[in-house]
Amino acid sequence: MKSHGLSELARRSIDPPISWLMKVALARPELISLAAGFTDDLSLPIDETRAILDEIFASPKQARAALQYGSTLGDGTLRRLTAEWLREQDGAPGNSAGAYDPDRLLITHGSQQLLYLLTECLCDPGDIVLVEDPTYFVFLSILQSHGLACRTIPLESDGLDLGRLESTLESLKRSGDLPRVKMLYTITYFQNPSGVTTSLQKKSGALFLLRQFERDARHPIYFVEDAAYRDLRFEGKDIASALSLAAHRNRVVYSGTFSKPFATGIRVGYGLIPRPLLPAITRIKGNHDFGTSNLLQQMLARALDSCRYRAHLPVLQQRYRKKAAVMAKALREQFPDEVTWQEPKGGLYIWARLPAGRSAGMKSDIFKRALDRDLLYVPGELCYAPDPTRRAPKTEMRLSFGSASEEKIRQGIERLGAVVRDRV
Amino acid sequence: MKSHGLSELARRSIDPPISWLMKVALARPELISLAAGFTDDLSLPIDETRAILDEIFASPKQARAALQYGSTLGDGTLRRLTAEWLREQDGAPGNSAGAYDPDRLLITHGSQQLLYLLTECLCDPGDIVLVEDPTYFVFLSILQSHGLACRTIPLESDGLDLGRLESTLESLKRSGDLPRVKMLYTITYFQNPSGVTTSLQKKSGALFLLRQFERDARHPIYFVEDAAYRDLRFEGKDIASALSLAAHRNRVVYSGTFSKPFATGIRVGYGLIPRPLLPAITRIKGNHDFGTSNLLQQMLARALDSCRYRAHLPVLQQRYRKKAAVMAKALREQFPDEVTWQEPKGGLYIWARLPAGRSAGMKSDIFKRALDRDLLYVPGELCYAPDPTRRAPKTEMRLSFGSASEEKIRQGIERLGAVVRDRV
Repeated sequence: MKSHGLSELARRSIDPPISWLMKVALARPELISLAAGFTDDLSLPIDETRAILDEIFASPKQARAALQYGSTLGDGTLRRLTAEWLREQDGAPGNSAGAYDPDRLLITHGSQQLLYLLTECLCDPGDIVLVEDPTYFVFLSILQSHGLACRTIPLESDGLDLGRLESTLESLKRSGDLPRVKMLYTITYFQNPSGVTTSLQKKSGALFLLRQFERDARHPIYFVEDAAYRDLRFEGKDIASALSLAAHRNRVVYSGTFSKPFATGIRVGYGLIPRPLLPAITRIKGNHDFGTSNLLQQMLARALDSCRYRAHLPVLQQRYRKKAAVMAKALREQFPDEVTWQEPKGGLYIWARLPAGRSAGMKSDIFKRALDRDLLYVPGELCYAPDPTRRAPKTEMRLSFGSASEEKIRQGIERLGAVVRDRV
Repeated sequence: MKSHGLSELARRSIDPPISWLMKVALARPELISLAAGFTDDLSLPIDETRAILDEIFASPKQARAALQYGSTLGDGTLRRLTAEWLREQDGAPGNSAGAYDPDRLLITHGSQQLLYLLTECLCDPGDIVLVEDPTYFVFLSILQSHGLACRTIPLESDGLDLGRLESTLESLKRSGDLPRVKMLYTITYFQNPSGVTTSLQKKSGALFLLRQFERDARHPIYFVEDAAYRDLRFEGKDIASALSLAAHRNRVVYSGTFSKPFATGIRVGYGLIPRPLLPAITRIKGNHDFGTSNLLQQMLARALDSCRYRAHLPVLQQRYRKKAAVMAKALREQFPDEVTWQEPKGGLYIWARLPAGRSAGMKSDIFKRALDRDLLYVPGELCYAPDPTRRAPKTEMRLSFGSASEEKIRQGIERLGAVVRDRV
């Protein structure tokens, strides 16, 4: 039988190029991978987690509650503590409670699930999602599988190019396509992959623009703020989220996670959801799994409540600061001056740019030769959405300092530097 | 703005009636709920779980592996042990390895997620799913949200009415609708809600029938075996799954879970997937969450490997045997003879039938009066798929002995009995 009876969604779900990279990495034990978005192993909170588990299992009553089903929205204590944490991070005044109401908070199985639920909640096949250029490639896989189109908005050093956002919206208005535009997806802290952090002014400006076009869209165009890397800042001051912009409260979807800043093996993410979307997204979550593992949620609730989460962050941040510095130093030493990058202030990545005309893409000499020397990076081209209105650059490399040891980072950049020096 | 920009899927996702029941239950602390599918609190494996966690955290290396990301398919050890466990349960001979190949196993965030992924993988809006009548109501919510239609197949005491399955397939063939039929969804052990267990002959017969119609469907029609309650048998001998039917290996999707038989707070389910579906369903899982929490998976792997899982089952089974007996005794004492039910041999539910013409539905006197007396059950009508070709009975009640204590079960049936005696 030729057909396997797959749905449209299944047939649209193409194997993401990153899974090929991961297979390559697994097949070569000697490989140094600067590709994966894995976090640092040595700073995982082993002692903290053990202490939390000891607390939970010290009382049969608590243990039972952790080992039983919870509710679809998530554990009440975790939702309250998460909302408080966000409000504190945003330095929000007392009268801003509505924006940080725990009732608007949905706990998910990692923030990836939140992005999936949100896409299902808002988008029909043929709809259009505005994305940063470049952007998070697994989000692009979600969009692709749901039959959605992208319009890309270039990034400046402090976030979206608002002029281009406006002209894109204007063009969508002229072509009658605005009703198909449901959201703008942004990664506002140490963006994956570019490392760019969005200023509050840019968030406000983007929201202001989106709202100007709502009348023609005939529905809200939501501003999705993916803050996955927010707590991984190791330099400079935190920036308030778009939730702090009181005028736009019901247009912001804030997506956060405890996985990356605490433990990726404990998959707990969350979303602060505009009230009009909350019933629908909760029902969809109910159909997915009627609620995230209660044990994981109670672990995180205790991590927040005991301040272990808060105490763990500086440890983690110091570690990444060190690893980022090691990578930056190696890049300065090993790479020719024509290759440019920004010194990171947080997150997991350095985004390195070759001079125009050179390629670091999947099929490039640089990528192949690096692989021959057992060095893997993410070719930047994988982070560009399909968008026929512009040509995606192939000159970039996403280099992760998250998972590899300092020694491996040094060795890895040395190997890559030799290849790059030879071809640039 | 009138529209919130919701997708078709979101607009089709109606609030399941069960969530109303749950809100009712939460708002009445005095309420005895025989409605929830929660499991028994007192037999949760607290000591076993603590011991497993101690083992994991005894070594930093193991702890790190548990606290880090894993792969999308799931932990290799857990997949191997799960496959071995299934093969042993099925008493499968040595040459049947292919059917139980760990490579075909996908670990999910509870088996509910497997059902969701499978629906996404196979069905487009307008497609038709064959379901048992009655069936699991949260699965019906998944179908509803995806815009799918149902055809219902009545249950006999040993599973599907194969005559009706055949005539339904014939009728779909005549109307040209067979290409829209992708799967038959069955709950083969202590069915939720009816308690019926499907014989191996019936599984084989159903598969045989489905295959006869594949040529006209122009694709496989998959037999989905949801075995969520299999390990909750407390009477009689286990029955082999459809995986044991070597001829139909690539037509069976087997959905299992460790949540109900071990701990519902540790959400780990799994699917044994026909090879042609595996790449697509894995990609969709990747888009959902790129893999189930590694910590939970490693806990289950240790529970299986150490035989703690196996040793826990008789404890659990004895507990449910006792609670089922308490409920059955109370029903015999409190209910009039006109109300019928089967003595359960496993699972969590007794399915009680009033005489024809009486109603135990959401709007019935019996339901309302029971609620006035702080007693909640699941009205059977909620378990019937929308199917215009038959009228769904309202005469049934799903009574769960899973969560309530023996004392509460006795009191609950006493309260309900008084209402039923009064109205039958």
